[in-house]
Amino acid sequence: MALDESSLQKFGYMEREPLNAINIDPLQTGGILTDEARQALVQWGDGYSVCDFCPGTLDQIKKPKIKDFVHEALPEFIGADEVRVTNGARESKFAVMHSVANEGDWIVLDNLAHYSSHVAAQRARLNTETVSSTGHPDYWIDPEGYATAIENVIDENGKPPSMALLTYPDGNYGNLPDAKKVASICHEYDVPLLLNCAYSIGRMPVDANDIGADFIVGSGHKSMASSGPIGVLGVSEEYSDIVFRKSPTHKKKEIELLGCTARGATLMTMIASFPNVVKRTREWDREVENARWFSEKLENLGMTQVGDKPHNHDLMFFEAPNIYEISQKAKSGRYFLYKELKSRNIHGIKAGLTKFFKLSTFGAGRENLSTVVDAFDEIIKKYE
Amino acid sequence: MALDESSLQKFGYMEREPLNAINIDPLQTGGILTDEARQALVQWGDGYSVCDFCPGTLDQIKKPKIKDFVHEALPEFIGADEVRVTNGARESKFAVMHSVANEGDWIVLDNLAHYSSHVAAQRARLNTETVSSTGHPDYWIDPEGYATAIENVIDENGKPPSMALLTYPDGNYGNLPDAKKVASICHEYDVPLLLNCAYSIGRMPVDANDIGADFIVGSGHKSMASSGPIGVLGVSEEYSDIVFRKSPTHKKKEIELLGCTARGATLMTMIASFPNVVKRTREWDREVENARWFSEKLENLGMTQVGDKPHNHDLMFFEAPNIYEISQKAKSGRYFLYKELKSRNIHGIKAGLTKFFKLSTFGAGRENLSTVVDAFDEIIKKYE
Repeated sequence: MALDESSLQKFGYMEREPLNAINIDPLQTGGILTDEARQALVQWGDGYSVCDFCPGTLDQIKKPKIKDFVHEALPEFIGADEVRVTNGARESKFAVMHSVANEGDWIVLDNLAHYSSHVAAQRARLNTETVSSTGHPDYWIDPEGYATAIENVIDENGKPPSMALLTYPDGNYGNLPDAKKVASICHEYDVPLLLNCAYSIGRMPVDANDIGADFIVGSGHKSMASSGPIGVLGVSEEYSDIVFRKSPTHKKKEIELLGCTARGATLMTMIASFPNVVKRTREWDREVENARWFSEKLENLGMTQVGDKPHNHDLMFFEAPNIYEISQKAKSGRYFLYKELKSRNIHGIKAGLTKFFKLSTFGAGRENLSTVVDAFDEIIKKYE
Repeated sequence: MALDESSLQKFGYMEREPLNAINIDPLQTGGILTDEARQALVQWGDGYSVCDFCPGTLDQIKKPKIKDFVHEALPEFIGADEVRVTNGARESKFAVMHSVANEGDWIVLDNLAHYSSHVAAQRARLNTETVSSTGHPDYWIDPEGYATAIENVIDENGKPPSMALLTYPDGNYGNLPDAKKVASICHEYDVPLLLNCAYSIGRMPVDANDIGADFIVGSGHKSMASSGPIGVLGVSEEYSDIVFRKSPTHKKKEIELLGCTARGATLMTMIASFPNVVKRTREWDREVENARWFSEKLENLGMTQVGDKPHNHDLMFFEAPNIYEISQKAKSGRYFLYKELKSRNIHGIKAGLTKFFKLSTFGAGRENLSTVVDAFDEIIKKYE
């Protein structure tokens, strides 16, 4: 591509089509910015803006109040001894794996784990032993599966895995496993546990110390109303010198964070949204009620919600044989559902899916959720 | 910190004090957003906004036009066979080191390298052999130093280093070494070269293929008018299967990028600014003229610019014995210069520095630079 006037015109400012839709995309519902975060973006958007008064370490910046946020507010919020901001939950997971395990080591993780947990392990050149769920329709993770998996690793390698990982909740079914029990089982074998809370921190109350997790990771853009990429990483005192080890040549810089992570507006949006985010986690019960109400309504329309039931999270997976049947004869084929929802200003179910799909009710409120339920009702009737 | 109403009030939206100052901070001058990027921030600020229509891989997204940007425009702009966006230049450097070198291997780098080059090598658990500059006052990197360093590594380890790194320009003196020569020397030993262009890509014309660099990294927030953290990574065809290797379990995901990097507004600001950024690199001569003019003016006021002379970049390092002398008797001591400049709405020389400091003239324009020169003149006269 020659970079002449006409090809350059392809770039520049672009508009986002689904911006003002009712959004039920699990990836997006928890990352919609607060008004304060939107203001922060404009104020702090310039590159390296937060570094105006940097003393050499991002988390030590006093102006703006990053130090208090990282060292006082976040540890209290997620119940971790030491916290840092990172470039995302996956970057947090890799940082932990790369710190506590050596190449060739084994780790244990649930088979509902996000793909990025597997890819992080592959990047760290680790082997993985998975804990199976019960499969369809509950996809339940039995905590005892962690004991079995750890023992398998010991049997095969003569030593326990370097760590275990539990997805809380998983990103397909929104299932919340018994994390406390998993932590306690892992600790019986002296195996530290990482809790992947990309879909929980910022949505619901989570406390790493209460659960007994040694590492906890969260996602700003997924669940903390932040502009990404940004995540959080909480580490227990026992492991903080390992994960946050400093450079021998550049004493202020933490090696695993490459010295500095969310060096810009992303962090300021997380701080801007924080008061609202803390408060919304205190109203989590209402979100669960909305999810259950929505699940019941969709089931009344002929779909089936799989995973935990009654459900405990806004992320839900539905099987929709009736919608699939319509797609077999509809003019737009498997894209008919996407188009029908789009024409009703509803965004978030992946285009082309009909037989099953996931969605999230987080933050939508009962009124918008009613609109979505009515839309499904209308669409089904339209094709009857 | 209890997260009650009064402590939460410490966070939320904050204003940025130096936002509208004349900015000469080397970290910041190339990262000031264009109007288009500021608009993009508001439009694409929500978490995972760019993923509305993701086919499973960030760089393959067609709407917005990420695929064309990453696979057509960027390769042309930086002269690299394959390009990806990353979370920043340091993240790009680590990705390359972690891909092409094994733990315990050696790499060679210039001793003007940014701290994050060293920290990236430490994170990848590599050993480093440095190429010295000529020291004060030129800080010149002799390309032949790379031959010596490579031979030292061979002598000590029986094999050449896994790669070499050259900083182009360095972040202290703004020196532009003979990168072509360094590349050619490295290739004589079959050692691939990474060019750290955090301070050049987006400011001045740079072409990896023309120089002969195997890897090239740039920084969006430092030099491409982007909201960070975001960077670019260019790789020659020869190494692209290694650096961008895919997951065996998740076929669309590139391991070294953890599947996905700049998954949000950061990328949209880079795309929004791109037409302007391309055009400004074509006016680089004017920036160099401004830098030289500014350097001469400051030297006339009793300061000395060290490094390349005449200078070839907007980033410059000054020694200021006269300013230091004033600080010895000024009421605010070593903070006097910062305060005097601040009162004249000039930001970017690190608070507390007087004996020497670095600054950048990039994008300021002759009028603002005259204001800065006049400010120094006034300040010196005031304390005479």
